[in-house]
Formats: sequence, C-alpha cells, structure tokens
Amino acid sequence: MAVTKKHTAFRKAQPGSYHLSVRRPDRRLWSVTTLQFYKKNSIFFFAADLSEVSDLTSTKDLLKVRKIGPLHIVSRSTPAGPALRLIAIRGSHVKDVQNQHDHRNIDIKKVGIKGIRYPINVLDRANQTQATVATINMYVHLPHKFKGTHMSRFVEVLNAYCGELSLKTFFEMLEAIRSGLDARSANLEIAFPYFVQKTAPVTGIASLMEYQCEYIGRVNDDDRRLTVSVTVPVCTLCPCSKEISSHGAHNQRGVVTVRILYQEFFWIEEIIAVVEQSASSDVYALLKRQDEKYVTEQAYHRPMFVEDVVREVTDKLRTDTRFAWFSVEAENFESIHNHSAYAYTEFSRP
Amino acid sequence: MAVTKKHTAFRKAQPGSYHLSVRRPDRRLWSVTTLQFYKKNSIFFFAADLSEVSDLTSTKDLLKVRKIGPLHIVSRSTPAGPALRLIAIRGSHVKDVQNQHDHRNIDIKKVGIKGIRYPINVLDRANQTQATVATINMYVHLPHKFKGTHMSRFVEVLNAYCGELSLKTFFEMLEAIRSGLDARSANLEIAFPYFVQKTAPVTGIASLMEYQCEYIGRVNDDDRRLTVSVTVPVCTLCPCSKEISSHGAHNQRGVVTVRILYQEFFWIEEIIAVVEQSASSDVYALLKRQDEKYVTEQAYHRPMFVEDVVREVTDKLRTDTRFAWFSVEAENFESIHNHSAYAYTEFSRP
Amino acid sequence: MAVTKKHTAFRKAQPGSYHLSVRRPDRRLWSVTTLQFYKKNSIFFFAADLSEVSDLTSTKDLLKVRKIGPLHIVSRSTPAGPALRLIAIRGSHVKDVQNQHDHRNIDIKKVGIKGIRYPINVLDRANQTQATVATINMYVHLPHKFKGTHMSRFVEVLNAYCGELSLKTFFEMLEAIRSGLDARSANLEIAFPYFVQKTAPVTGIASLMEYQCEYIGRVNDDDRRLTVSVTVPVCTLCPCSKEISSHGAHNQRGVVTVRILYQEFFWIEEIIAVVEQSASSDVYALLKRQDEKYVTEQAYHRPMFVEDVVREVTDKLRTDTRFAWFSVEAENFESIHNHSAYAYTEFSRP
Amino acid sequence: MAVTKKHTAFRKAQPGSYHLSVRRPDRRLWSVTTLQFYKKNSIFFFAADLSEVSDLTSTKDLLKVRKIGPLHIVSRSTPAGPALRLIAIRGSHVKDVQNQHDHRNIDIKKVGIKGIRYPINVLDRANQTQATVATINMYVHLPHKFKGTHMSRFVEVLNAYCGELSLKTFFEMLEAIRSGLDARSANLEIAFPYFVQKTAPVTGIASLMEYQCEYIGRVNDDDRRLTVSVTVPVCTLCPCSKEISSHGAHNQRGVVTVRILYQEFFWIEEIIAVVEQSASSDVYALLKRQDEKYVTEQAYHRPMFVEDVVREVTDKLRTDTRFAWFSVEAENFESIHNHSAYAYTEFSRP
Repeated sequence: MAVTKKHTAFRKAQPGSYHLSVRRPDRRLWSVTTLQFYKKNSIFFFAADLSEVSDLTSTKDLLKVRKIGPLHIVSRSTPAGPALRLIAIRGSHVKDVQNQHDHRNIDIKKVGIKGIRYPINVLDRANQTQATVATINMYVHLPHKFKGTHMSRFVEVLNAYCGELSLKTFFEMLEAIRSGLDARSANLEIAFPYFVQKTAPVTGIASLMEYQCEYIGRVNDDDRRLTVSVTVPVCTLCPCSKEISSHGAHNQRGVVTVRILYQEFFWIEEIIAVVEQSASSDVYALLKRQDEKYVTEQAYHRPMFVEDVVREVTDKLRTDTRFAWFSVEAENFESIHNHSAYAYTEFSRP
Repeated sequence: MAVTKKHTAFRKAQPGSYHLSVRRPDRRLWSVTTLQFYKKNSIFFFAADLSEVSDLTSTKDLLKVRKIGPLHIVSRSTPAGPALRLIAIRGSHVKDVQNQHDHRNIDIKKVGIKGIRYPINVLDRANQTQATVATINMYVHLPHKFKGTHMSRFVEVLNAYCGELSLKTFFEMLEAIRSGLDARSANLEIAFPYFVQKTAPVTGIASLMEYQCEYIGRVNDDDRRLTVSVTVPVCTLCPCSKEISSHGAHNQRGVVTVRILYQEFFWIEEIIAVVEQSASSDVYALLKRQDEKYVTEQAYHRPMFVEDVVREVTDKLRTDTRFAWFSVEAENFESIHNHSAYAYTEFSRP
Repeated sequence: MAVTKKHTAFRKAQPGSYHLSVRRPDRRLWSVTTLQFYKKNSIFFFAADLSEVSDLTSTKDLLKVRKIGPLHIVSRSTPAGPALRLIAIRGSHVKDVQNQHDHRNIDIKKVGIKGIRYPINVLDRANQTQATVATINMYVHLPHKFKGTHMSRFVEVLNAYCGELSLKTFFEMLEAIRSGLDARSANLEIAFPYFVQKTAPVTGIASLMEYQCEYIGRVNDDDRRLTVSVTVPVCTLCPCSKEISSHGAHNQRGVVTVRILYQEFFWIEEIIAVVEQSASSDVYALLKRQDEKYVTEQAYHRPMFVEDVVREVTDKLRTDTRFAWFSVEAENFESIHNHSAYAYTEFSRP
Repeated sequence: MAVTKKHTAFRKAQPGSYHLSVRRPDRRLWSVTTLQFYKKNSIFFFAADLSEVSDLTSTKDLLKVRKIGPLHIVSRSTPAGPALRLIAIRGSHVKDVQNQHDHRNIDIKKVGIKGIRYPINVLDRANQTQATVATINMYVHLPHKFKGTHMSRFVEVLNAYCGELSLKTFFEMLEAIRSGLDARSANLEIAFPYFVQKTAPVTGIASLMEYQCEYIGRVNDDDRRLTVSVTVPVCTLCPCSKEISSHGAHNQRGVVTVRILYQEFFWIEEIIAVVEQSASSDVYALLKRQDEKYVTEQAYHRPMFVEDVVREVTDKLRTDTRFAWFSVEAENFESIHNHSAYAYTEFSRP
C-alpha cells in the first residue's frame, strides 16, 4: 500500500501531484516521489513511497516539497514552520541494487527509458491546448561509479508533467529529471502528432492536417538546448519531367522536416506555413473538385526539385533572426521510381 | 468560395455541421455535404458546396437536412414549411469524371480512403471521454457501372463525426458514409491508442498504460456488423523453462489481441481486465521496487505458455453471454529467441 | 552434446539433414529431429536429440528415416535390413511439459512461431534460383487435450527446407511441419523480396526492381491450399485532375497486391507484367532522361483511378483459366493528400 | 534503345559493366555511364547513354574507361592506342535541367537517393560470400551554383558494385559516386541482414541467426570515413528483480548496436561474439530442451542491467587497438513494462 504521512500545515497547496525532495543523512538531495495529496480540514495528508530512502529514519530529513507545474511551492521542514513534516514513515526496506558501485570506470552518456507512450496536452496557437499522444524517451548521464539508474523515477516525472507541454514546461521537466535522478545531465525527446486546421484554397472547406513534431532537449550544469522538429507533407512536381515532356510532369507526395535550435519563441504553425509555401503545392485532407483543379495547376506552375524545396525553405528561414541554427530535410516518394529523392542541408547564423 | 444559401426557418436547429441530402431531378437521393451553419436573427444561413450536383437547378430539389450527431432534425423542403430552402445556388460547373460509366462490368468490393489520421474523442469508462489520435480507413462498395467514387465525401463525414466516437455514433457514421456516397455497403475501420490508469500492485502508485484498440464495422442493406479489437501487453513466463531449470525461468513481454463481434455493450476496460488476469503477470508503466518484487514473484508462480494465455482468455470470455463470437491472438517476444511464439483461436457460441 | 547412434547400412543416403520419425511404444508416429549425418566407411553415423522421446528405451522403436528434400529415402528398421538402426540412445531425460494434458477443452487453431528471419533460395524464371531473405510464420492446429506445441521443431523443418523454395517444395515443407509436429493441420507463410531485371523503355538500360511476394499455405487431412501474393509498385495519374485542369495532372506512386489461389503453375513475373500494363505507368529503379520523358507522357495518356487499376488487372486475370480465385488491391499514395486512395476486389470463377 | 559505339581494341577487358568517364569540352571530368560491354573478334562494342553529355560532339572527348571492381583498366583514347574510342555517338538531345544555375547561394550537404532496395553479396568469414538484400542511401554534396543532381547516376553505380560488397569495394563505390556525380563529397549507407550459423550450447544443433548490419561511409577530398554498425539480439535478466524476489527474475530480449569507426580490418562475427558474451545470455533460432535449461540457468547466474551490457561491451572493445572510436547502444524490451530500458555510450581512444 502507499505509505501515508501526516502533514500539519501547507496552506497554499492544492490537491494533486507533488515532487518530494528528501535530504538524506549524508546530506545529498535525492529523491523524486509522486504523491497523491489531499486535504482534510486544515491538515494535509499525502501518500508517498519512501522505501527507496533505505536509511531514512526520521522526519527531520524532509527538506522541501515543490509542486510540479506553474504553482511552485517551496517550504522547509522545521518543527516550527507552516511546512511539510513526515510524521510516520513506513515501507519495506528493499535493497537498492542500482546504487551499488561499478568498477569498470565507464560513464554512460545516456541511460533511461525509451518508447513510452503517454497522452499529453500541447500548446496550440488557435485553441490554446491540443490533446495528443506522444512517444517519449527520457535519459540521464550516469557516472562511472554507479551501477544503474532508477528507471521508475522517469515515469514519475512524466506523470507529473504530461498535463501541459509547452516550451517553458519542457525545460522544467528536464530539470525535474535531472534533480529527480540526481544526474549531471538529462535528455528528453517527445514526439507527437499535431493537428492544424487548413481550409481548401477555393471552396474554403476546412479539415485537419497532421504534422509530426518532436521536441528534443538536453540540460546539464552549463547549458540547455532544445531542438524543435516539424515534419510537413508537401507535393512536388519535377522540373526536368515538365521541361522534357510534351504533356504533364511526374509529381509525388514528399515530406519536409525542419529542425530548429530553439532560442526565441515561435509557433509550429509558422514553420508549417514556410514549408507549405516552399513546395510545388500543399497537401490537404479535404479537397473538392475546384480545389483539386487549383492545386494541380499551381503545382504545374511551380515545378521544384527536392533540392529546390530545401533551398527555398532555407532561404526563407535564414532571414528570420530568431533562428540561429536549423536543418532542412526533404524526401520525395518519387512516382516513377521505387525509391525516394532526398536532400538535406543546415544553416548556422554567423 | 463556399456557396451561401438563405434559409427561411429552422427553429430547433443548432449551429454546427449539417449533413445535406439533395434529391436530384432523376429522384436519386444523393449528396453529402458538410455545412458550416450559422443563425442570424431568425434566418438560418449555411455554406455548402453544391458544385458536384451538376444538374441541380432549383431549390425544389432539396428534401431534408439532418444534423449529424444526437440531435436529429428532419424536415422537408416546401414553400410553406418552417424548413430549409435553397434560394441561390452558385458554384463552378466542374465535370464529374467519377460519375461516368465503366464498361468492364466489375464491381469493386471496397473503395475509399486509407490511412487518414484524425484526432477523435472516444467514450471512456472513467472519464466519459478521452482525446486520442486515430488512423482511419473508410470504404464503400462501388457497383460495376460507376467509374469511381468521390473520395472527398469520406473526409466530410469524418469531419462531422470525429468529435465523439462511441459504439452508437460509430454506426451513425457508417450510415452517413453509405448515404453520402450513395452506396450499397460501407466499411469503417478506426484504430486508436486508448489509455487507462493502472495502479501498481503494492505501492498503489498510478500511471497510464496504452492499449491499442480498433473498431471495424460494415453496414449494408441487410445487416450491420462491428468488431471491437483490444490489444493488451502482458508478461509471460515459460512453464517448460521453469520446470527444467534449477533456478529462474525465461520470461518476456507479449501482446494479446482480442476481437469481439459486438452485440451488447461492453467496456474496453472489461476486456483488458480479463486479459491481464490471464497471463503470468500484467505489464505496467510505473513500478517501484516492492511492485517489481510482487510482479516477478507472481509471474514465477503463474507460468503460462502462449497457448495457455489464449485458452485462459477464451475460457473466461466464453462464459459471458454478451459475446457471440470472438478471437484471441497472443504473440510472445521470446527472450531466448529472435522470433515470437504465437497462438490464435476463435470461439463461436452455438 | 549431440547423441550419436551407430547405423549399420544405408547405402543410398547422402550426408545432410535427416527427418527422423520414431514410433513410440504406444505406436504413435511422433518425432522430428534434425540430424547431422555422416558416412564413415560403410557405416552411417548420425547425431540426434531423442531426449524428447521420454519413454523411448529401445532401438526397435525406430521405424523410418526420410531425407528432407527431393531424395526421399524410406526404410524400415529391422535387424536384417539395409536400414537405419538406433544402437545406442543417450540423452538427458528432460520433462516434456508441452505434452501434458490441458483440461479447458479448447482447441487452438494456430500455434507456432512468428517472424523468424531466414535466408532462402527461390525459383526464378530468368536465373533458376535467386537468393533472398524471408520472414516466416509457421503454425499448426493444437487439439484441446495437449498443453503446448514443440516450437523448436518448426525451426528444424525450416533449416531443412530453406535451401530451395519452389511451389513444389513449399507443400513438402507444409507436410513436414504437419508430421513433425504430429498435427492435423499446418500453416506456412513465407514473405520475401523478389528482384526482377527491368530495362528502361527507351535507353534499354537495365536495373533491378524489388517486388514483395508471399506464399501463404495451409494443409490438413482433406485438402491443401496455397495463395501466392505479389506486390507491384506502379504510377497512377488522376483522370479527374487531368480533365479539370488546364495543365498537368496529379500523379503518385501506388502499390498493387494481387493474391492468387494456386492451382496451376505460373511465374511471379507473369503477374508483375499484367499489373505493370494495368497502371498509368510502370515504376523503375533506373531511368535516363529520355526514359523519364517517355514514362511521363505515357502516364499522361493513360489516366487511371485506383478503381481503374483494380478493374484492369481483374479484367486481364479473369480470362486466364489457371486462376480460379484471386483478389486485387491497390493503394495510391496521393500526391495532394496526406492519406491514400484504396480499392479492393475479388474474383471467383463460377 | 541503347546507343552502340564501336571500339577498336581493349585487350584485357572482360565482358561486364564499365564505368565511363568523359571529358567535356570545358575539360571537366564528368559522367558515369553503365555499359553493357561485349567482345566480338578483337573488337569491343559497348552500349552507352551519352545523351546527357549535351554538348559532346566528338570522340576525342573520351578520356578513359575503368572497369568497376578488382580489375582496373585505365586507358586513354587516342587514334593510335589500344584503347577505347567512341566512333559514333547517338542520342536524343534532352535538356539538362539539373545543370542549370541556382541563385540562392545555398550549398546542399546531402542530395541523392534514399531507400533503394537491391540484392548484394557481402564478404562472410565462414563462406566467403553471402547473398542478402540491402536498403541503400546514396548522397553527394551539391554546390550552391548547381540546381540539381543527376539521380540516375547513383543507380548506375549501384548496379555496377552490388555484386561484391566488402570493406574494400565499399570505398571504391564511394569514389565512383564522387566522380560519377562530379561531387566534392559522397555518402553511402548500406543496411542489410547478415546471417551467421550458431550452434545450440548443449545439443550442438545448428541454425542461422540474423544480425542487422550497416556500412555508413563518407569520402571527400581530404579524407574518408566508414562506420560499421552491427546489431545483436541478446537476453538480459534484471539484477534488481533477482535480488529482491524470492524466486525468479524478470528477463527479456534486448538488442545491442555497436558502431565502430573502421580503421583496421575486423570481421562482423568478432563483434557479434563480444556482444553475445556481454549479456545475460545469447539468443538462438533453435534450442532443444537441454539448451533451454542451459540458457535459462546461465541468464539467472549472469544478471545484467542494460547499463552493465553497455559497460561490458565497452570494456572488452576498448582493449582492442584496432578500434579508435566506437559507440555501444542497448535497448531492452522490458517484460514488466510497456516501454524499453535504454543505455548508450561512446569510447574514443586518447
């Protein structure tokens, strides 16, 4: 069962999940524990698993509780304070194999969990939030002396943050991984489908288009880095085919992936717009006949090699000073071949 | 541009999407058009694309409007009535190639769109609705005399129904496809990830688990058929390995897929529960050490071949009279082999 | 270690793998064991694992040995005969958990191994054989009274047959699975890439094209059934788009999968040719500019909906009396949409 | 049709594919053309497509012919010489759109073809060569002034080299891409399944195991770089689970991918052996019961976290001075979770 502790006073706290840091007898700031927290009269109770704190014997070890999310509440545990106190600690003492020493003297650059699927809410320009389903990887650096990392803590952090994913909470989540796993650096990769409403060019009929996105971030003592990746399906029509043929030109669907090193805020929708203007034509979920005519003719008048798409996107993005580094990658599923045409380039602002 | 029509009176109508049926001069009931509908004073206006009704010349062709969703409003178009009347029809006349005749005398069993991705809301036992992202296939039967089907209408129906997917609205959506595409039969396949909260067996800590689900349905003049598919990850431990080894036993993750012919209502969560009780152990997103111990020991005491898992699930489901037909399929990603062990069976109530 | 048995005389036998059938004391014909077999002077030795024959105590139990492959050698075990005799049987007695009884009274329709990857040689019209890599599923029916099947025997059969896969050896392999696992029915599914040389239409330059194929078979006491599946990439150009646009027409790559119920011999290459003549244009690995011009113009003059491709292939194949049943499925990766257009039909000769 | 040229004398030449370099009037060394080459009396004839050499008017432009593969033959085209002379050049003059200028001043780091599937023969320690099926990407750098690259030339190079892939021919192929596409740098990525025979640990029964491999190379004016990647399936048993549970321990299949910067020759089989000795247990295609017992008990006595596997492999490989840089990546498909445990590290020799 979950272990229940009584808490005397924590007035501004709200029911929900808490991130509990415990200072161990050896003074290291150590654990992450997800708590179910509830209020009864003016007393706050919470359930925590402190069994991993294998040598924790007294409540004086409790240092602070921070609520995960925008409402940060920090308090210290003192007998006097309107604070959080652990009164009764129960749990089975289960040996911590991961904290044993390793003697091979090999650091592990990334260790953690890969491919966990979770529903998340992401920030959306039109609607504020959008519910979607993400595939997530979460890693930390593991110094050579430790045998292993505590895989479950990653999921506890994910549990706490999945309700709201924005560029701001993404960094908070990375820090929560770092401190929760007591690590020097943390990596977080969240890939998710993102839907934007598009209207057909002539009839104006609306439908939703899917764009695969990914936030890839890393935080360590010295810096933090986030790359935002957006994948946009497009239609490209071959200039060579158009030039040399008496009628028509082969065209196909392609995908363009832009990866931007995040420095200043931008909307995913802005990147989508740049890419869609840089191909022979957009791709749509719903087109009526007049739209199909429009789109076919537009593509015919804007023939582009996969090299042109990559150059066109690069040309547009490099004028935007918010972007210090980005890469553009395009893959066309050639209609006359059984393989793809591919192009890739990078830009780095001097 | 969208074509605007003026409507005199439609009192109970609500803003939203409408499913418009138009009776053509040759008296066939024909089109599906998604409308954006709004009310201004007591007059209802809506925007529709009627360009495909290439020979529609007068408003007397309009027969009825049904709102898609729970509020069905049926009305007839008469000069007198508080009804819906098309006053002005505008649209470019674009040739309807799909409606041409085909002379090869070959029916097409299924034609439509495959692999479209859309966000949907599904009915959820705990929370009422759950937002997720689906992959959808939508087909109709095409009689031999018609050259092609109108692909865009499928997306219009999807647009109208994606806001609420339950077993009830699933059949309404199938009927909307059938009538919208004027077809004898319609197929609909919606595959989506579904999340259910699980609590770890000892600590009670909660996390979300993903279960892949699919609704596969077909409707024609005579009957309707829906199969609900639920995929549950499990852990299986090999009885042979346990029996013959002095210590331990090889175990691995597996997936069990149950497909049930829908006749009476059931929750996805019920099927998940049956499967999770029919394996060596459940699989969890979040386990602390005491949970890991519990789960490891439980699996060791419940060794099961892939054949046992399939038989156990079958044995439990066949006692439930709501299920007239079902199949159970299990695949274990063997830890000592580079391939899977697999079993499949079906049950049909006499 | 492998168990060695001495064999007195087996004159026509060749070194290689043997399929050993053993008659148990209860007279059931039971096991399949792969043997490494070698000849020393006139004595034949082989290594076999007979430990699963848990109650086998004497060599009189040995009934016959058949070589797997074209050279069938059947002999009886008699003291007198030029036959195969087991002289010394050694092996650890390991309990056969799979042969225990099951009390739930549930037959399993298919149980076995899934997704094993093995190199195979297939029959090829141009070159006689072609080396490729297959993904294989092998199943049997398991009657309700047996707890489990012996997964390793499937791999032993695969080992013996992978050197030559033709329509003839495919059925032999199915029978080997049936008898080796002592089952009422057996299923075998072998999926592999198949390469055929194509020459570009103008320059005549040659290159290889990949076609995904699959043999799906089932054998039981009463009948045998094999379906051959061939997947062909094609290019399709939209008739509607061509009709309504002033220039050009959207086109895309598609795939067509034909599944034929095998009754009389046919080459995969014949089916490929039928499909390639039934689309707007073929797809090639290597095209020079004149070829690209040719292919672009050909597609423009042969616009076809996905419905047309399916009808065209059906129309051609139904005149070939070798084909009693087949299905045709086409999926176009639409260049103006983010989903596919799809069509499917079947033909059954009256 | 292919264009036929007459050749006067080329004595050591063998029938087969030739790599033709042509010096254009502006003295740039330019084309790659696959030729079918045959000998008639002492006259050599070959078929080539020289239509892309849009301003080639005379045979004096032909500089040299090199046979692709171990037999390099270099000769100059002179009236006198025992050489290769182009006597008659025919071809339609098709405009070369790709060679037009681009004005956006953006280099493209990689452009070419992606995902082409071709059969190849690779060098194999046991059998000399092994036939398999590869997925191939081929790219070049494209300077900012050129509009596009000539995609077909990549396939011509592939055609010429697929018969024999070894570490030596891999670099020859990269150079052929570079010169054939007249590029400053070239990238080549060849991914293929590789089969090695394994014998079960107790019975000695043999079967084949699949290991996914990849050669990833890059060549430019200054250097050449090749990374060899080998993926090995393994079984890992959790130390924590074993320690804390009264019986058993959860275990699962995992995959370990080692990427080595190639400097000195090594066999793929050596890397496989290192990884297989660095996990709780190997994985096999075929195990009889005694083997299963052995493997289960071995895993139980060698519990290893995913971190241990990565450290163990690193520890072994770093003592081998042939390896100046390598990375080790391990992913366990956890039997008690629906996600993977993952670890990654790199080693760089000081």
